Amino acid sequence: MSNRLITLTTDFGTSDYFVGAMKGVIATIAPTARVVDITHEITPYNILEGAFVIAQAAPYFPKGTIHLIVVDPGVGGERRAIVGETGGHFFVAPDNGVLSMVLARGPHKVRTISNTKLALKDVSRTFHGRDIFAPAAAHLARGVKPAQFGKLIQDAVRIEAMEPTEIAPNAWRGIILKTDHFGNLITNFHIDEYFAVKTNPFVVRVGSAEIRRLALTFSDTERGELAVVVGSSGYLEITANQASAAQELGCGLGAPVELEIDTR
Amino acid sequence: MSNRLITLTTDFGTSDYFVGAMKGVIATIAPTARVVDITHEITPYNILEGAFVIAQAAPYFPKGTIHLIVVDPGVGGERRAIVGETGGHFFVAPDNGVLSMVLARGPHKVRTISNTKLALKDVSRTFHGRDIFAPAAAHLARGVKPAQFGKLIQDAVRIEAMEPTEIAPNAWRGIILKTDHFGNLITNFHIDEYFAVKTNPFVVRVGSAEIRRLALTFSDTERGELAVVVGSSGYLEITANQASAAQELGCGLGAPVELEIDTR
Amino acid sequence: MSNRLITLTTDFGTSDYFVGAMKGVIATIAPTARVVDITHEITPYNILEGAFVIAQAAPYFPKGTIHLIVVDPGVGGERRAIVGETGGHFFVAPDNGVLSMVLARGPHKVRTISNTKLALKDVSRTFHGRDIFAPAAAHLARGVKPAQFGKLIQDAVRIEAMEPTEIAPNAWRGIILKTDHFGNLITNFHIDEYFAVKTNPFVVRVGSAEIRRLALTFSDTERGELAVVVGSSGYLEITANQASAAQELGCGLGAPVELEIDTR
Repeated sequence: MSNRLITLTTDFGTSDYFVGAMKGVIATIAPTARVVDITHEITPYNILEGAFVIAQAAPYFPKGTIHLIVVDPGVGGERRAIVGETGGHFFVAPDNGVLSMVLARGPHKVRTISNTKLALKDVSRTFHGRDIFAPAAAHLARGVKPAQFGKLIQDAVRIEAMEPTEIAPNAWRGIILKTDHFGNLITNFHIDEYFAVKTNPFVVRVGSAEIRRLALTFSDTERGELAVVVGSSGYLEITANQASAAQELGCGLGAPVELEIDTR
Repeated sequence: MSNRLITLTTDFGTSDYFVGAMKGVIATIAPTARVVDITHEITPYNILEGAFVIAQAAPYFPKGTIHLIVVDPGVGGERRAIVGETGGHFFVAPDNGVLSMVLARGPHKVRTISNTKLALKDVSRTFHGRDIFAPAAAHLARGVKPAQFGKLIQDAVRIEAMEPTEIAPNAWRGIILKTDHFGNLITNFHIDEYFAVKTNPFVVRVGSAEIRRLALTFSDTERGELAVVVGSSGYLEITANQASAAQELGCGLGAPVELEIDTR
Repeated sequence: MSNRLITLTTDFGTSDYFVGAMKGVIATIAPTARVVDITHEITPYNILEGAFVIAQAAPYFPKGTIHLIVVDPGVGGERRAIVGETGGHFFVAPDNGVLSMVLARGPHKVRTISNTKLALKDVSRTFHGRDIFAPAAAHLARGVKPAQFGKLIQDAVRIEAMEPTEIAPNAWRGIILKTDHFGNLITNFHIDEYFAVKTNPFVVRVGSAEIRRLALTFSDTERGELAVVVGSSGYLEITANQASAAQELGCGLGAPVELEIDTR
């Protein structure tokens, strides 16, 4: 229990004292916990992107890991703070849907964080990452049980936008969940679902482009050629070999994308 | 003593080998010390911003923490290297005022770093972060006493610009200490001083704007509306809900700001 | 052996789940290994820059450190994965030349990584950092011997572009290996070789500029004045005091640079 892992995913950037203050709080409450940054560059206030990123990273951590996610446009307002448990992992976050994707994967428990003894003494109106969420994660790392934070709830906020919708037989509308560092556009079409792009002709429409090519890997195509690839997260990605698909197409996070499969 | 914390605050960015080399030096001298990044994105050469950031982050770390701050436009020149002690924390930095804000808070001791046995053997003219400051922090983490670094001094460099000046009864001129990741502009008007904005009408002038609205939290205002908020650091901040006040106002770090309070 | 250091150098950026997933994999396989980021901001796909950065950072780490370098434009294609050993350090990387500079320094061994038991069970076509390289580094940290990964090879890929070429007596052509965070341009002319700039008149030609001034340190010149300085890595750098030489000259990574020394 003593050297538990705490991961951090925020939209705080790394140019302020914000992340440092959170790590200081954790080091004070749980001196032997180990802190791992996932990213602090979630697009500011973008709950959807935060939900996607933590869902991709978390499964690679050992059981017992505590994931702290702070993308929190409603800080200081009415939104609740929560602790979620699923698959042997713990998730500490604002109750705004940022845990939608991890909780959708299987059986889970969610509790409110209402025990003020497990927060800093002075809670600011603008920085709950430091004053509520970091202390909660640190207390979990020390061995405090989730039940000590607050009562079970059944109505944690969910974002529905994460799932594609069928708009015609074998045709779906989805969105871009993330533009990655290389400019690849990650869609919300997951290969494990019903998207038989490996065996059937298909077309992906995004921006003004229609893409019919499936590539096995990034280096499989001509430099700059647009193609669809099954990304490392299992989602279909629009890629342009050694170039930025996002720049070529002029679109990014949240953009609509359509997939049509010819199953004749 | 064995797993002491060392925090890092620099203007080195994270795209070079600079921070990596410093961490390597620390790992070599003090293998069990734990290193925490506060930020490496202080605006290059901006001592004022460095002074502000370390002063905000440090208090959240446990006593005994060693804070390494390298914002060092005068590297290789005449400026001294120093070790400061205050409030149970240690601070290793160039003597250029970057410790002004932490040392202003209470009783402190400052010593020069002049013992060359506690630096790397070959000291470059351009990278004292690696050659002098990282070794000093690592030796402190190992248990070397501050007195072994050099003699006490009373004339450590102070930046006076950090304090607001009264320009008329109940009217002050200050500066923007920091533009944060969200575009909030942090002033040097601290709520604990004499700035009774919570109980009296006031006006803040910055850029070409006059702001009279006090918000309790970021989400308290209309999207994009300019307001003053008491930030998590206790300083008055100019904020624009889910938008960048810095962009809206076209100003940032170092910009002048005026505060006038109507106490009638 | 238990708390071995693993350093990370990639072109993944820090805005995705990529680095987090790698750290999760390492924490799962080698729970007590300690991970240190060197940088994740290598210019995407730029093997030359990756080769330079790891060569500068690695020597400052203690012996036994495992360095993981993932700059991998050929991921999913035919390129091999390798483990290199030199100077008591281990290097895990794609075989594309990114280890050229560290391996050029002295006796070394290089092996392929072909033992699939030391990778994740499901290896994607697009993210070998997570599926092959991170597991390899973690297994080394656990004490797995390099010989268990695969057979010795003699034909690891080398980049020849890293060495300057003599174009006339006492005149060399080289390239910019790196633009650092401050805009300094780091050349591939190393002071330990044959570049007697400290004792003879010289001219450096880069972009449209001719620079004849040698400065001892950055603060030695006028603000914005172009000069040559012997950088902390031992390479000649083009610098502009408290300004960006890269911006002033409009050039960066990969740009040609010439050095002519007057030895009369």
